[in-house]
Amino acid sequence: MRLDMTPLRIAVAGLGTVGSATLRLLKQNAELVATRTGGRPVAVVAVSARDRNKARDCPLEGLAWVEDPRQMALLPDVDVVVELIGGADGMAKDVCEAALRHGKHVVTANKALLARHGAALAAEAEKQDRRLMFEAAAAAGIPIIKTLRESLAGNRMRVVQGILNGTCNYILTRMGEANLDFAVALREAQERGYAEADPAMDVDGYDTAHKLAVLAALAFGTKPDFDSVTVEGIRRITPVDLLYAAELKFRIKLLGVARLTDHGLEQRVGPCLVPVGTPLSKIDDVLNAVLVQGDAVGDVTLSGRGAGGGPTSSAVVADLVDLARGYAGLPFAVPVASLSATRTTPADRRESGWYIRLDVKDQPGVVADITAILRDEAISIESLLQRGRSPMNAVPVIITTHRVDEAAMRRAMEKIGKLESVRDEPCWLRIENA
Amino acid sequence: MRLDMTPLRIAVAGLGTVGSATLRLLKQNAELVATRTGGRPVAVVAVSARDRNKARDCPLEGLAWVEDPRQMALLPDVDVVVELIGGADGMAKDVCEAALRHGKHVVTANKALLARHGAALAAEAEKQDRRLMFEAAAAAGIPIIKTLRESLAGNRMRVVQGILNGTCNYILTRMGEANLDFAVALREAQERGYAEADPAMDVDGYDTAHKLAVLAALAFGTKPDFDSVTVEGIRRITPVDLLYAAELKFRIKLLGVARLTDHGLEQRVGPCLVPVGTPLSKIDDVLNAVLVQGDAVGDVTLSGRGAGGGPTSSAVVADLVDLARGYAGLPFAVPVASLSATRTTPADRRESGWYIRLDVKDQPGVVADITAILRDEAISIESLLQRGRSPMNAVPVIITTHRVDEAAMRRAMEKIGKLESVRDEPCWLRIENA
Repeated sequence: MRLDMTPLRIAVAGLGTVGSATLRLLKQNAELVATRTGGRPVAVVAVSARDRNKARDCPLEGLAWVEDPRQMALLPDVDVVVELIGGADGMAKDVCEAALRHGKHVVTANKALLARHGAALAAEAEKQDRRLMFEAAAAAGIPIIKTLRESLAGNRMRVVQGILNGTCNYILTRMGEANLDFAVALREAQERGYAEADPAMDVDGYDTAHKLAVLAALAFGTKPDFDSVTVEGIRRITPVDLLYAAELKFRIKLLGVARLTDHGLEQRVGPCLVPVGTPLSKIDDVLNAVLVQGDAVGDVTLSGRGAGGGPTSSAVVADLVDLARGYAGLPFAVPVASLSATRTTPADRRESGWYIRLDVKDQPGVVADITAILRDEAISIESLLQRGRSPMNAVPVIITTHRVDEAAMRRAMEKIGKLESVRDEPCWLRIENA
Repeated sequence: MRLDMTPLRIAVAGLGTVGSATLRLLKQNAELVATRTGGRPVAVVAVSARDRNKARDCPLEGLAWVEDPRQMALLPDVDVVVELIGGADGMAKDVCEAALRHGKHVVTANKALLARHGAALAAEAEKQDRRLMFEAAAAAGIPIIKTLRESLAGNRMRVVQGILNGTCNYILTRMGEANLDFAVALREAQERGYAEADPAMDVDGYDTAHKLAVLAALAFGTKPDFDSVTVEGIRRITPVDLLYAAELKFRIKLLGVARLTDHGLEQRVGPCLVPVGTPLSKIDDVLNAVLVQGDAVGDVTLSGRGAGGGPTSSAVVADLVDLARGYAGLPFAVPVASLSATRTTPADRRESGWYIRLDVKDQPGVVADITAILRDEAISIESLLQRGRSPMNAVPVIITTHRVDEAAMRRAMEKIGKLESVRDEPCWLRIENA
């Protein structure tokens, strides 16, 4: 094999947690990395960050400082621009576009950018015959991008399901094990550094949705299409839901799910009941996991830490090693021209089993009213629990249903919500089987 | 990107479960595969098997039949020989050697061959500038080979731990959940088609050891060295061990473990106690899983079905798609010349916690005798259970220890085994933490 032994020269844009961890890892394991590329060193030559004077825990000696990272595209001694700035638009997008246009390879950890502009960037990479790599953009060091792009290439994929946000998984785990309210568990996550001061991106599901859009594109050969993802977060989950779910042998997880159905591609993010014993039910705390179901391989599950400097830099360096070895694959495995547009499953046609929690007045006939409404919508009950007795006060009624589409459920929930004996809005959550 | 659009032409040697599943998968998903190679079809052109007249559930129309698969090396219209014959030596080895020597790429699922002759075959591949691919050789469709070779390339690996044999995992799971003896669970596995008529390769640990030798080479940059792997199977495990282990919050799993220690590379296969809650403790039935610990990524776990036609053919086709895309990597990621010889951790220096089960006469002073022996060997007790009372009859004593090396344990177990009050051989098993 004729290996290229000249160093692969990289410029790193963004020196936050991931950027500085990448620099540290490339230095600390430089020899190892050079061995694994077959002798070709990976050399950082330039860096850029917003504030040059900020103290940083990473090796910067001898590296060129670039004020405007878009200028990295013009550096003649740079082969790869590593974009670790973040954000769907603005500087991150400009940096990647400029780099590709000027013949640099791009490595990025930017899920938001790829979810929104992945197809356009991939088209530019193809046109320029340059690589666009993004293992770090979903689940950090868990090699799900390469697994979908390469390892499962022989499979027709049926579903990709992931616990893709460690913050949410930590919060749900703590709510369940310590009977905490969402707000309390969130505060705890913030104190431990697992959640941002503004947690919206995580707890409202957008971070998961960005990652899901990227994974769905790879799994199903479609253009990444963030706008087709239905997104819901975990704010409305209460500890009693986790309790009842556990009693019914489920866990509640924030899942990103992409599934090919008869009606198109279903992409959604939301809290789901996952049966105890299934792979994703076992993933707790800040861990992430992705389950892929292929027609030949069956179910494959990958799990590990899905965020943080170490795991994310591991993924960035894997992409760099691939580049150094002469990797020649396309960003989404297939040419952009053959990526299909998403035919989205209409929300109403999305089927699943459901969990319903109602607060009802403890009076005769309530359950009969509720079950009559479900019957009228042809919703078949799998189980019904009525807990506690407290005549004329509110008691919870918990129902699980067999598979039925969202439209029927929505109609039934509207009618049930209007019953005089039902207090508060009904809470209904999807039951997700792989 | 300039993609090669001429078909990748393959010859398949061996039409057993995996061979015929590979042919079916390539036919069934032909269009998909051609898309994922960027337009290049993967075309089977020739096949070979021992008995031409056997009925086979796979498409053979239009394929050349080759009587002697070594002759595939000479077919001018073949780019890749896929070796699915099996066995460490003999025909499988000849086929792979001949193919590489005559300039064909080789894809193989043959763990035994690679564990024993992997370095020599890789050297030949390097010399001929041809690829040697073997994703299917460990854990079937679970992409652990590519993960070690590529996705974790930035990491210094600390340990690779795997449940790599579905037969053993099924037997241990059933023994634990239904309180079955090994022989009964084995028979059940055979009836379900999970175990061979001669189960030695699986239940005595050799299959796991072959896979471990391959994984260790990739993880630690050493030559695959089957002879350095200490191998023990699961025949001596009893249902009471599974019971006591569960009581102490452990599961018993047959693990292949490769770990870098201060004293060298430790490679061993044997039944281990795995703490409940850790990723491998959750893998039941016929499922396989591999946990890799890297210095940057932390723990990554991959799980799924580790055997069978579907999962194994998924891995074979992934290798073929890589080849069709122009994959140029070396078999063990680094040149054979830079693979180090294994410096094996001496068995006596291998440290861990231990589980000990003794059958002792229920008489005063027994526990004092046992604990005195452990004290004399500086073995620190973590827990001790003495169950049941049955004066002058045998009762079990269960001890777990803190970390100590194998040499001290062996000495202590010998002395304890000689105590008049101890019946039968002491049973001692390793406690494995990642």
